[in-house]
Amino acid sequence: MADTPEEPLLLTPGPITTSRATKERMLHDWGSRDRDFIALTRHVQGRLLHLARGEENHVCVPIQGSGTFGLEAMLGTLVPQKDKVLILVNGAYGARIAEIAKRMNRNHHVISLAETCPLDPVILDEALAVDPTITHVAAVHCETGSGLLNPIDKVAAVTAKHGRRLLLDVISTFGALPLDVASLPCDAVTISANKCLEGVPGITFAIVREESLAASQGNATSLSLDLFEQWRMFEETGQWRFTPPTQVLAALAHALEEHDIEGGIKGRGERYRNNCQILIKGMQELGFQTFLPFKFQAPIIVAFHSPSDPNFTFPAFYDFLRDKGYAIYPGKVTTADTFRIGCIGKAYEKDILGVLAAVRDAMKKFGFTPG
Amino acid sequence: MADTPEEPLLLTPGPITTSRATKERMLHDWGSRDRDFIALTRHVQGRLLHLARGEENHVCVPIQGSGTFGLEAMLGTLVPQKDKVLILVNGAYGARIAEIAKRMNRNHHVISLAETCPLDPVILDEALAVDPTITHVAAVHCETGSGLLNPIDKVAAVTAKHGRRLLLDVISTFGALPLDVASLPCDAVTISANKCLEGVPGITFAIVREESLAASQGNATSLSLDLFEQWRMFEETGQWRFTPPTQVLAALAHALEEHDIEGGIKGRGERYRNNCQILIKGMQELGFQTFLPFKFQAPIIVAFHSPSDPNFTFPAFYDFLRDKGYAIYPGKVTTADTFRIGCIGKAYEKDILGVLAAVRDAMKKFGFTPG
Repeated sequence: MADTPEEPLLLTPGPITTSRATKERMLHDWGSRDRDFIALTRHVQGRLLHLARGEENHVCVPIQGSGTFGLEAMLGTLVPQKDKVLILVNGAYGARIAEIAKRMNRNHHVISLAETCPLDPVILDEALAVDPTITHVAAVHCETGSGLLNPIDKVAAVTAKHGRRLLLDVISTFGALPLDVASLPCDAVTISANKCLEGVPGITFAIVREESLAASQGNATSLSLDLFEQWRMFEETGQWRFTPPTQVLAALAHALEEHDIEGGIKGRGERYRNNCQILIKGMQELGFQTFLPFKFQAPIIVAFHSPSDPNFTFPAFYDFLRDKGYAIYPGKVTTADTFRIGCIGKAYEKDILGVLAAVRDAMKKFGFTPG
Repeated sequence: MADTPEEPLLLTPGPITTSRATKERMLHDWGSRDRDFIALTRHVQGRLLHLARGEENHVCVPIQGSGTFGLEAMLGTLVPQKDKVLILVNGAYGARIAEIAKRMNRNHHVISLAETCPLDPVILDEALAVDPTITHVAAVHCETGSGLLNPIDKVAAVTAKHGRRLLLDVISTFGALPLDVASLPCDAVTISANKCLEGVPGITFAIVREESLAASQGNATSLSLDLFEQWRMFEETGQWRFTPPTQVLAALAHALEEHDIEGGIKGRGERYRNNCQILIKGMQELGFQTFLPFKFQAPIIVAFHSPSDPNFTFPAFYDFLRDKGYAIYPGKVTTADTFRIGCIGKAYEKDILGVLAAVRDAMKKFGFTPG
């Protein structure tokens, strides 16, 4: 492998481009059971709990791996065999929660909705009224396949009204969109280091209501993905049960400092919203159409309809933009041919203007027109 | 957190001290679905397969997380519900395999042996003769709790004689002790990036016989820890199913170059054996006794009996050595009070002499005598 591979700006749903200083935190080896690393872990747990407004009744439990590992740990630990989880699906990540539940043989019911529409609290209300055996509701905050933002406040209100427990995937929004696990209310959320927190990939976290977690012993059929045992070990020793990605955690600790300096969730969210608006406006001026109406769009990643012009092919378009320094993303919705451009990571207005200029160049080079 | 925390040499079973150049490979952000990262993944897979001598009939499947995640993926994917695995236990890591099997409700039988003795092929032979329903045998190459090396060649020969399949945990030895999955023979091994390969923690790998893996679809009850689906995705697209720790993989790619330059498994093993011999000799000269007889000792980590002198306490001893620049490890065997000093990672003869001098200083400072 080349020693200095070229490094395009990652305009994707993650891993995203992180700061040099965040990466430099990885130039160190930590003993995973040493006092420095115990302190580092505790520091990060506290910061994340604070960002989620979970300090009163929740705890923060890290798990090695990607967000999917965290989702599996959350479901496997918090939904006992005898319970039943209702999974709201309007995109690939809701579908993934359903796949996890099916794989681990947990009782579940799936409500599948159109991937162009936000989750409907009325449908949820009816489903919970009809089936009293449902104990939990699971949903996704932002579906990054389409870029859609779901109304988790309304989902939470309906779930609470029926006395059920809410489990949320906020992997792609945490750090950029406000979250208040106490007031939602919400039993647990899964978050990730390498999205809006702008850390590097390798760790996921659950923010869990302590009372629910304390009652979950023995639920998980996985040793690795057991939030209860993971939490107990942290409580008893401050240590991870199994070797953690030490450098990844250290990078996150620094990324959280940068998050704070940028103005926390508010400041980070404003930059991403600005990126998103400039991107959509610029692409529309070039003739591209967004997959979603603007009112449903999260400021995380935007799906655009692929041009039907035969002069457009995604691989050639991707390679052209990449050679100009921008790595974009293929489409993931099932009902249309799309491609995606992200708004998150260390990307600023000038970068969005840069990718827009590169898209314009691609149109000239390949001779395609959008639409 | 301090910007430049002090960095002791890690004389532990891992994470270990890595080279500066290995860590510098992490100063880059990769798009996990980008061509560069696909090439990087393929390169590492090929190198590991080559080191395991598995090129003819095996494949290399990475999984996010620690070695335990890899063990769980190996068992969950390769041992179907209807099968039965015999687990040979003479230490904490064999016991962990048994715990994984119990948690995921796989049929299993455990043979528990003394943690001071290598696994006994005669006992295995008898167990397999008695129980024809056993389909797989699982064992650990080196038990790092005690430091003991198990005779996996003899275990493999007996397993093969009975026509059963062998699953091995070679997490703590891979890269320093020879392994030949083809001639052992062995169906699968689990390895880790952050032990003798001298990479950073966050990725584990299974080297699996392709024929066994191809027959394993649907066995795993975990979505995240499914080696079959993980392998299929790599075969089809070269990509990871879920976000990988990109920087961790890049660090491993560089660590593998250093491994090659040091003379591969032979060169790395020689340095560790030299570390181990100097360490044991020096500690014995100071009056310490090893937990194991030398003939059972792996050149990975050495367990020493803790002094019974009331002037010795492990926390004070640890802190003293750490302040001198050496992070050692607490004991893990159940039958004696021990502490451990590792021989692996970027540690050389001068470093082992350094920790010996620090141990001598500690004896003076605290006024304890070993034994």
